[in-house]
Amino acid sequence: MELYSGYINKLVDELAALPGIGNKSAQRLAFHLIGMPEDKVNRLANVMMEAKANVRYCSKCYTLTDNDICPICSNPNRNHKLIMVVENSRDLAAYEKTGKFEGVYHVLHGAISPMIGIGPGDIKIKELVERCAQDVDEVILATNSSLEGETTAMYISKLLKPMGIKVTRIASGVPVGGDLEYIDEVTLSRALDGRIEL
Amino acid sequence: MELYSGYINKLVDELAALPGIGNKSAQRLAFHLIGMPEDKVNRLANVMMEAKANVRYCSKCYTLTDNDICPICSNPNRNHKLIMVVENSRDLAAYEKTGKFEGVYHVLHGAISPMIGIGPGDIKIKELVERCAQDVDEVILATNSSLEGETTAMYISKLLKPMGIKVTRIASGVPVGGDLEYIDEVTLSRALDGRIEL
Repeated sequence: MELYSGYINKLVDELAALPGIGNKSAQRLAFHLIGMPEDKVNRLANVMMEAKANVRYCSKCYTLTDNDICPICSNPNRNHKLIMVVENSRDLAAYEKTGKFEGVYHVLHGAISPMIGIGPGDIKIKELVERCAQDVDEVILATNSSLEGETTAMYISKLLKPMGIKVTRIASGVPVGGDLEYIDEVTLSRALDGRIEL
Repeated sequence: MELYSGYINKLVDELAALPGIGNKSAQRLAFHLIGMPEDKVNRLANVMMEAKANVRYCSKCYTLTDNDICPICSNPNRNHKLIMVVENSRDLAAYEKTGKFEGVYHVLHGAISPMIGIGPGDIKIKELVERCAQDVDEVILATNSSLEGETTAMYISKLLKPMGIKVTRIASGVPVGGDLEYIDEVTLSRALDGRIEL
């Protein structure tokens, strides 16, 4: 659409390239940005560039952090022999929010997906195996319950078990508050298989 | 949520302040930006600042443009005696897309809304009246069909009619392809009032 401003068109194009932002929202956002005070626009732009320039991977667990080692990995009160493997930093944040996990993490930055050409070498699996050569009691696989997540969990499990490490998988089943009649058959049969004695 | 990176937290906060972007999408966007190549992030940031610094109001119709006078106002093939009044530049773009309007525009940048404290002096009404002091045949009021849009149209109409200018309002009725049973009563009665002979 011709908006009669080359600058706005360029901005709309850039914004529409971001995930979850369609052409209509990109346009709305662009007009909003144009209407914002100049110092606020500059601040947002600078925060973006600053974050990109300064955020790096933790050299132990590969989560995104401002320092060489993230606050979790450098916390002596966490159990460093208990590693939870997650697909990305958002999943780490989700588990941290529960406050129930006292171990450390390992962020894979993806999952094995032959369909879109992501192999084991494209995510941080080698790094996990290296970490496990040190003193580790248990590795909890908390990849997603999707085809990719399951495949990745299987693959890692096959690598680590021969090393004598206890490998576990987070439970799969009916979500808390979930209504049985709306839950798919695979989840229901998983919940049955994973039943525990009360 | 503690994401273990001050830079990411700051970025999420800035993004979440934009319209239509909730906390979850802000987080997703922030992680996406961090994952993008640095030159692309810098380009997006620069396009934002550049657009804000360079886009201005057309000195005739007040739409957003890169130049002192927008391409529509500087086009000699448009009818400069026919002015369509719209609430914002997005509405202008919507009408331009139809390709059916050969006149020029006047962008109010808002609508009268006593509820949120926007009075006639807060939008470009004075500027419209000044334009109409010159040679104008007709002013088409194309503000939204909302309470605010109707109020604004009424207000402008009362100012311009005593100046001897023909003032019209775009038709209100059943949208093309609309199914009568799903259309509200006010729209239906408007459509009835505005019926035309075939």
